[in-house]
Amino acid sequence: MQRALEEIREALGHDDVISTDPEDLWAHGYSEWSTTNPDGLPVAVAYPRSTRDVSILAQICYKYKVPVIPYSGGSSLEGNFSAPYGGISVDFAFMDKVVQFNRDDMDVVVQPSIGWQDLNEQLAKQGSGLFFPIDPVKYGTMKDWVINLTVVLADGTVIKTRRRPGSLRRATLKLAVVPEDLSVAVVPFPSIRDAASVAAEVMQTGIPIAAMEIMDEVQMKVFAGTKSSVRENINQVKRIAKAHKGGEFEFAKDEQEQKLLWSARKESLWSMLALRKDGEEVWSTDVAVPFSRLADIIEVSKKEMDDLGLFASILGHIGDGNFHESIIYNRTKKEERDKVEKCVKNMVKRAIDMEGTCTGEHSVGWGKKDSLLLEVGPDTLGVMRAIKRALDPHWIMNPGKIMDVP
Amino acid sequence: MQRALEEIREALGHDDVISTDPEDLWAHGYSEWSTTNPDGLPVAVAYPRSTRDVSILAQICYKYKVPVIPYSGGSSLEGNFSAPYGGISVDFAFMDKVVQFNRDDMDVVVQPSIGWQDLNEQLAKQGSGLFFPIDPVKYGTMKDWVINLTVVLADGTVIKTRRRPGSLRRATLKLAVVPEDLSVAVVPFPSIRDAASVAAEVMQTGIPIAAMEIMDEVQMKVFAGTKSSVRENINQVKRIAKAHKGGEFEFAKDEQEQKLLWSARKESLWSMLALRKDGEEVWSTDVAVPFSRLADIIEVSKKEMDDLGLFASILGHIGDGNFHESIIYNRTKKEERDKVEKCVKNMVKRAIDMEGTCTGEHSVGWGKKDSLLLEVGPDTLGVMRAIKRALDPHWIMNPGKIMDVP
Repeated sequence: MQRALEEIREALGHDDVISTDPEDLWAHGYSEWSTTNPDGLPVAVAYPRSTRDVSILAQICYKYKVPVIPYSGGSSLEGNFSAPYGGISVDFAFMDKVVQFNRDDMDVVVQPSIGWQDLNEQLAKQGSGLFFPIDPVKYGTMKDWVINLTVVLADGTVIKTRRRPGSLRRATLKLAVVPEDLSVAVVPFPSIRDAASVAAEVMQTGIPIAAMEIMDEVQMKVFAGTKSSVRENINQVKRIAKAHKGGEFEFAKDEQEQKLLWSARKESLWSMLALRKDGEEVWSTDVAVPFSRLADIIEVSKKEMDDLGLFASILGHIGDGNFHESIIYNRTKKEERDKVEKCVKNMVKRAIDMEGTCTGEHSVGWGKKDSLLLEVGPDTLGVMRAIKRALDPHWIMNPGKIMDVP
Repeated sequence: MQRALEEIREALGHDDVISTDPEDLWAHGYSEWSTTNPDGLPVAVAYPRSTRDVSILAQICYKYKVPVIPYSGGSSLEGNFSAPYGGISVDFAFMDKVVQFNRDDMDVVVQPSIGWQDLNEQLAKQGSGLFFPIDPVKYGTMKDWVINLTVVLADGTVIKTRRRPGSLRRATLKLAVVPEDLSVAVVPFPSIRDAASVAAEVMQTGIPIAAMEIMDEVQMKVFAGTKSSVRENINQVKRIAKAHKGGEFEFAKDEQEQKLLWSARKESLWSMLALRKDGEEVWSTDVAVPFSRLADIIEVSKKEMDDLGLFASILGHIGDGNFHESIIYNRTKKEERDKVEKCVKNMVKRAIDMEGTCTGEHSVGWGKKDSLLLEVGPDTLGVMRAIKRALDPHWIMNPGKIMDVP
């Protein structure tokens, strides 16, 4: 390990490429908002500046069989960037640039750690009229917007998954045209079942909504399109909501208020974290189910969650069949921890029984390996394992996540 | 091989599961509309009735290391279902059913050989208001609509890639709501460059068009949405077309005429085939490039194609940056064949140089292996090869396609 670190320092030629500062190791191996934090920390944190740096680092780690764990936003919730087997955490903080913007092709080449909000701010500043969308209801998920990736393989080989040449580039993303009009509205319902039913019905009617969010007491809907189609879509949704005893729509008056309405949802995790008392943690987890089961699972799961007698809430990107539970609890009290874990596992089991999935967007990471196995079974996991082994024979690329190290 | 066939007949218990009729072998190993037809035919054609049949067949082929080649619509153009190494062609003709339709979940479980038109007719007959869309511009490509697959692995193991239990099922597909309104229009342009420029600009403006087709002389546009948004979108496109010297829009008056306008495009390959004289073949191939290069590549490629002095045309799903060349030629005249091949290879090279791809939808098959290597390079192909080897150690699953047998 020490030899590997020395070789990396020497090969990359800049001193601050490797940190072994204890605080740095802690920040890259532990997360206060993660549901699980395995024992073990990375032995070092590397800060590459280019694909070449990453390739050299990978070559050396491959030679010494040192685990390599990628780190970018650090926002994951299932221990995805934890280091249960030590190794080097590779922090892409310095690789956060837009490399090339192709306005006419409606795509952009970016480095791995650029934030999507940052990217959209840069696109807006240039008056490009384009943005990188990630609302799964109207625009699909991340994978639908990736044209190609530059990938450093386990042994340091650099490949591009598809065309667009260049050595420093990392990912080419498709962009969408910014909608002419946008409207945000909040509508109250007498019960969460009513709210979930409306969400499912809106989707089944095919109204082109950009996003639809549910919260225990507040829901938000965002419509995007041309001015006249937005008006039309709002009326369609109003009719459906009315049939389900929905209250009056409260529309945002201006862009400022649109942001305000959204922030209630976007910052929900941080608001929960702020409410913690000493020694408390948040268990935040998500599942997704087919539309027809959405109202059922949310109603039953909310009831079980409320019965815990803890501070807890349900929210989610409901337009995609996906929702989240967030529960504040004290990890040091075994009984409390056990009952929270049981409640979460019951929700996951329920989603799988309804032909759903154990996670909609948090992914499997370290914490949900059992749930994935329950969902897909040993044979499907065996296929994933065979592919993993083919590309990572020493099992050093983020080991212990999604499936166990053999 | 003979022992394998006997075992399959015995295990599946019905006589007509295996055919060795020469005409059947020919029909499953040769295609008159394919650009390439390698030497070699399958030794037998199997007609499984269920996933269980397929699994047993795969187990036996794995034991005897017999190649297995899937066959469904038979419409592929690059020798995708050819049998250069012999083996068994598995024809899914009897597995063409809708297994389960979940109206409220907006999905459907189907067997592998159901046609998309057939599926949509069944959905329409039930008055479901849903359909399975495959227009890449508005709705994305096939992969965006697949929820899960039931897959028979090389050794016969049956896996499901994601949830939705059941033993006979094969693929769960998402469905979309049928648009309230639909409009089809044709608009003439003085040159193919003008036409291609309009297509690129329409995409860059973000108008939600369902499909946009280009033909040497005729173009078609289909708009889908609500009544008022369709009107609005048409006006936007009219403005763009006018700026590029586009002629008057000719709209279809009714559904009958919509179908008629489309049929010119949908049946273009069959019309070309009907025009062949004795001994002639059609070389039909496709590429895709970023929007900004579309007009350039179409103009240059059409010029080179016209210079061949053969009957040839350009058409394509231009809204996706994708277009096709179809050239009628006589395969037995070496000089003619050579110049057609050179013309096609030049177009492919040109697309790759423009950071495009060697095929938009025909795929690589047997005929475009060199082009794929040129596009992605040996290291990326190496990754594909490693995954192939991990899942198909005897290299018996459709061998010789996409990459060479090692």
